[in-house]
Amino acid sequence: MFNIAKVLADIEADSDQNIDLLADLLKIKSISTIPDYADECYRAAVWLKAFLDSFGMDAIIYESEGHPIVFSNYQTSRPEAKTILFYGHYDVQPVDPVSLWDSDPFDPVLSSIDNEPCIIARGASDDKGQLLTFLIALKYIKDEAGELPFCLKIILEGEEECGSKTLPIFLEDYKDKLSADIAYVCDTGMWDKDTPAITRSLRGLLSEEFKIIGPDRDLHSGEFGGVAWNPIRIITKILSDVYDDEGKVTIPNFYDGVNEVNESIINSWEKLSFNEAEYLSKIGQKSSSGETGRSIFEKTWSRPTFEINGIFGGYTDEGTKTVIPSEANAKITCRLVGNQNPEKILENIHKYIKSSLPDGVQVIFDGADHCRAIEFDTDSYYFQSASEAIEEEWGVSPVFTGGGGSIPVVEAFKTLLNMDTVLIGFALDDDRIHSPNEKYNISSYVKGIKTWARVIAKYQ
Amino acid sequence: MFNIAKVLADIEADSDQNIDLLADLLKIKSISTIPDYADECYRAAVWLKAFLDSFGMDAIIYESEGHPIVFSNYQTSRPEAKTILFYGHYDVQPVDPVSLWDSDPFDPVLSSIDNEPCIIARGASDDKGQLLTFLIALKYIKDEAGELPFCLKIILEGEEECGSKTLPIFLEDYKDKLSADIAYVCDTGMWDKDTPAITRSLRGLLSEEFKIIGPDRDLHSGEFGGVAWNPIRIITKILSDVYDDEGKVTIPNFYDGVNEVNESIINSWEKLSFNEAEYLSKIGQKSSSGETGRSIFEKTWSRPTFEINGIFGGYTDEGTKTVIPSEANAKITCRLVGNQNPEKILENIHKYIKSSLPDGVQVIFDGADHCRAIEFDTDSYYFQSASEAIEEEWGVSPVFTGGGGSIPVVEAFKTLLNMDTVLIGFALDDDRIHSPNEKYNISSYVKGIKTWARVIAKYQ
Repeated sequence: MFNIAKVLADIEADSDQNIDLLADLLKIKSISTIPDYADECYRAAVWLKAFLDSFGMDAIIYESEGHPIVFSNYQTSRPEAKTILFYGHYDVQPVDPVSLWDSDPFDPVLSSIDNEPCIIARGASDDKGQLLTFLIALKYIKDEAGELPFCLKIILEGEEECGSKTLPIFLEDYKDKLSADIAYVCDTGMWDKDTPAITRSLRGLLSEEFKIIGPDRDLHSGEFGGVAWNPIRIITKILSDVYDDEGKVTIPNFYDGVNEVNESIINSWEKLSFNEAEYLSKIGQKSSSGETGRSIFEKTWSRPTFEINGIFGGYTDEGTKTVIPSEANAKITCRLVGNQNPEKILENIHKYIKSSLPDGVQVIFDGADHCRAIEFDTDSYYFQSASEAIEEEWGVSPVFTGGGGSIPVVEAFKTLLNMDTVLIGFALDDDRIHSPNEKYNISSYVKGIKTWARVIAKYQ
Repeated sequence: MFNIAKVLADIEADSDQNIDLLADLLKIKSISTIPDYADECYRAAVWLKAFLDSFGMDAIIYESEGHPIVFSNYQTSRPEAKTILFYGHYDVQPVDPVSLWDSDPFDPVLSSIDNEPCIIARGASDDKGQLLTFLIALKYIKDEAGELPFCLKIILEGEEECGSKTLPIFLEDYKDKLSADIAYVCDTGMWDKDTPAITRSLRGLLSEEFKIIGPDRDLHSGEFGGVAWNPIRIITKILSDVYDDEGKVTIPNFYDGVNEVNESIINSWEKLSFNEAEYLSKIGQKSSSGETGRSIFEKTWSRPTFEINGIFGGYTDEGTKTVIPSEANAKITCRLVGNQNPEKILENIHKYIKSSLPDGVQVIFDGADHCRAIEFDTDSYYFQSASEAIEEEWGVSPVFTGGGGSIPVVEAFKTLLNMDTVLIGFALDDDRIHSPNEKYNISSYVKGIKTWARVIAKYQ
């Protein structure tokens, strides 16, 4: 048992010291995609191991072909203690174009933007600042209580920005040591600087490409126009008929497994400060596509899509060529939600396309791949206790948002370890992640540390 | 006045001598697309001038930047004589791949294919053999009658296979000397070796390309999928909706000016020996596209089309990219018939596309070009007299076919000189025009000469 009020006060009092700690880590140029920076990645791993060891986490450095993973496997003496897993990544994006930075990307600068103090450096927000919020909270509690109130596995990866090739090898290798009741990941954002968020779902992905073959060679449109089956015409018909007039996908049984988000969450979304026209104008649009009667939140967080990512066929160079091509190609992806079954959907897409072909016209499918959507039960103990902890720190309850895309590590935890993940992060939309002058607000950092301390305190 | 029976008998008797004449012309390597053969093109022009001069046609060689045009302007003394114009081309296609020829492409060989005597050489059918059928007929009649029964302009071009750049300059230059009652062109084919044909129409062409712009930059389909207006989706919808379920084009007023072909011509098409399944299997198809209830003849000769010649947008390389692109592009052409007005149709295509765009989505049009369809009145004196002459020679009346594509010189005659063209030719589908081992049947050649003699005799 420990005194959380004292922990929070200590964290607040030690702000400058903790900022120095972050600045120290930010000086390491751990760009994972550029081979020349491999030593720097290793240095970052060593730095983190030393920090974890400083409060008794006994970290190891796991090495495979790529950049190392820092791993701790901490046992508490508490009876019936839960086991939790924490994930973060220490690698950062490249810094080019360097000329657009106002300061050296690896020489952190304290500054202030719109009266908000912040620290500017590559990795400040993604993900060095974020991962330290959790690790520092652990340290304060460990120091205060003598031990942690749970068993803990920490995975700090060095290849998140370059495809995470080592991670699956590690997960397979350490499978027996990784089972936990819940995972926490600190690599997401807040709704805005006053509104914390927990990501409750991530959309899955189904990708496929296909080729329609009409005549057996390119034909002259004068001689054969009106008789030849133009595969571009056929592919446009197939793709166009995928949507009805309400923007719903017409593939049979496509919506099987799509759950309506419960009303309290929908209500919380509707209360968010959000200007739809402004949101759309940022992408150069005046209106929004998608299903009639659904909000932007639903469309991007809780509804599936069928998207055409690429199309090509016939003559595509300068000028005119009166050709009826033999082939036309499309690349599509579906974003999936809830319990949508990618295999079934793919099967139904294949059936639909085959049934749309005139007699003698052929289709060749190529390259199907998929991962399922993830949707967590926000009524569970872990989401509810995290929500309470966040509300205590921020004065407002967090919004349960959705993630439009997927986060591979979260899917791996679900698939390989059958473990849910609570995604909490303190990044802001204006943090310029992956861009020049990346920053992390001091309030995100300090209140982030305190938030995690409160989340951890729930386990007492 | 002259004795046509004697002329026909003389032509028949002199067959070997006339074949030698063709062989002589075929030895000249007048490949117009390859600059190295410019001298050979000039030699062919000189050869033709000499031949024309041999029966008093007083030809000139018209030179501009490209290969020369041989031109005759013959005046008859007959009162109230008609004026006719004849067009042919002396240039030929390249011969590569030479290895696929069974003999030297420029050393003509007499052979027999399926018991049909023929002459094999580049240009035998396209167009040296064909143009000589007309010129030799003229010579026999001039020799027999002392003068021709009409005023005559002869245009023999040397750039038909490489874009006819000199022709429009010549037509403009000689405009005042070219007016005639009718033009004859001998550069088309028979329906089959027993069924002669006159081409009664040529389809026009309207070309356009356009770009649909959705979001103002490429977006991530995870973040914006379900909200962003994917321009590929919009362009596929636009293009797909251009056709109704019966294969008709839905652009408003598209069919204005499309005439139904008169019943007697349709009946003559239906009587032709034609195996639809065989025709389709030659292009690798089992069924035919186009308008429900229309025959293959109508679809390719007398009905307009809307064809998508090219489409491209988004990611088109290997693998998957979860992008919602900013742009999608299409290139389209319409084949036009009858009195369809390309300007009006283009305007209606533009209106249709604009009206199909969601609010804020844009379209940019680029590159519209067009030429009108040409349709001749087959009830006119020239078509009827040619038809009678052909029936006398071949024992069956010619079928009035359509041309699916356009023939620029015919369009130029119509546009610049307001003159119809009777397209008569004796080429056959198996003549291997533009391919190795090009041939021309001796029957096409000799009966071709006699056919033209009979056509000319109608002017007595």
